[in-house]
Amino acid sequence: MTGRLYGVGLGPGDPDLITLKSARLIASAQVVAYPALAGGDSFARSIAAGLIAPGAREVVIDVPMTQAREPAQAAYDAGAARIAVELDAGRDVVCLCEGDPFFYGSFMYLHARLSDRYAVEVVPGVSSLTACAARAGQPLAARNERVTVLPGPLPEDELARRIEGAESVAILKVGRHLPKLRAVIGRLGLAERAIYVERATLADERICPLSEAPDKAPYFSMILVAKGADPWL
Amino acid sequence: MTGRLYGVGLGPGDPDLITLKSARLIASAQVVAYPALAGGDSFARSIAAGLIAPGAREVVIDVPMTQAREPAQAAYDAGAARIAVELDAGRDVVCLCEGDPFFYGSFMYLHARLSDRYAVEVVPGVSSLTACAARAGQPLAARNERVTVLPGPLPEDELARRIEGAESVAILKVGRHLPKLRAVIGRLGLAERAIYVERATLADERICPLSEAPDKAPYFSMILVAKGADPWL
Repeated sequence: MTGRLYGVGLGPGDPDLITLKSARLIASAQVVAYPALAGGDSFARSIAAGLIAPGAREVVIDVPMTQAREPAQAAYDAGAARIAVELDAGRDVVCLCEGDPFFYGSFMYLHARLSDRYAVEVVPGVSSLTACAARAGQPLAARNERVTVLPGPLPEDELARRIEGAESVAILKVGRHLPKLRAVIGRLGLAERAIYVERATLADERICPLSEAPDKAPYFSMILVAKGADPWL
Repeated sequence: MTGRLYGVGLGPGDPDLITLKSARLIASAQVVAYPALAGGDSFARSIAAGLIAPGAREVVIDVPMTQAREPAQAAYDAGAARIAVELDAGRDVVCLCEGDPFFYGSFMYLHARLSDRYAVEVVPGVSSLTACAARAGQPLAARNERVTVLPGPLPEDELARRIEGAESVAILKVGRHLPKLRAVIGRLGLAERAIYVERATLADERICPLSEAPDKAPYFSMILVAKGADPWL
């Protein structure tokens, strides 16, 4: 009998936003796996730290800090191979995923490499999308409104086109793209509707109008742009 | 001292996908509030049923089954007034919300009516968006991909335009719009990429290619349309 692979969403950062299911899977795991960026700390592990059993084996997947495709693929190949060793030995593996595993999560690369050979279960988590909206007190969408999710690294003209045609917009991975995003949103006349949310639900969370956001934003930051007030309210 | 209002996300339906925070808030609540559609059962209450303390007071917000604006507004006015009575008496109120409170959730109408007068905290939940993707084994987006969320009741030509310009698409509130949605997706040549998910994470969950979906879909169903395979996989 081979083991079972779980990709468990941990939510946006506050360990209290882990689901009952993910918490139980983590606490009972003999083996946990998680990504760490370029040898640094793992945000996923830090969210789950209080739940990991003493003595659990930890498989760290070292993800290189690069925009290039091959080194990233090689890292996930290596990580998948190490997880496969555990699964072949009959041990379940719980892979820790910040946010939700399938919403801009790296777990999908492990899923693609392992789901044809092993039993894999994806446990959804609270995504940064709804966590930022909750913390900002800003509803995302009601009734027949559309929501558009855009990554901040997209080219300026594409961002402008997508934001203009949208109702409710969430821009993820703001990071060093904040000045560009502020310029695009300003040109579209939406600056007053834009909220900046940094490290939502963590102790050093920061929420402010986009106009007051710092020029240097961390990777885990988001801009929410809402259309006008809902006439149903 | 007035009480505090919590809008707690319960996730897509499996009570195991409630967060630790929401579970604790529900279990310790003296007063819970929840919407019920036209005098029927409350889906939100059914998700949280196992956590509600015996003896907790329950405030049912009767939401009429109508597309008209005024009756819905009146229902939320009345619900907000009843919650305000509890808050004024110094009792905290935990409002149960299926999915996430600010992602197509009715809690936003209570929030709009009460957040200027009372302390309100929104606790995000696992949204149907990521729950359906997890259950279907279908990643929503990676790296710089865009995600577009569209409600099924939108007009056919608008749906076609929005789907065509999108990468990853999630269509919510499929219900009786399924034949229309199938036709639009088919005309765009995307039928083979479309997955139908009904009542995700519940015991009677159903997942299949859109081509095999039933003509009569429940309100809580979704269609996921993914762009081609991720070249990074």
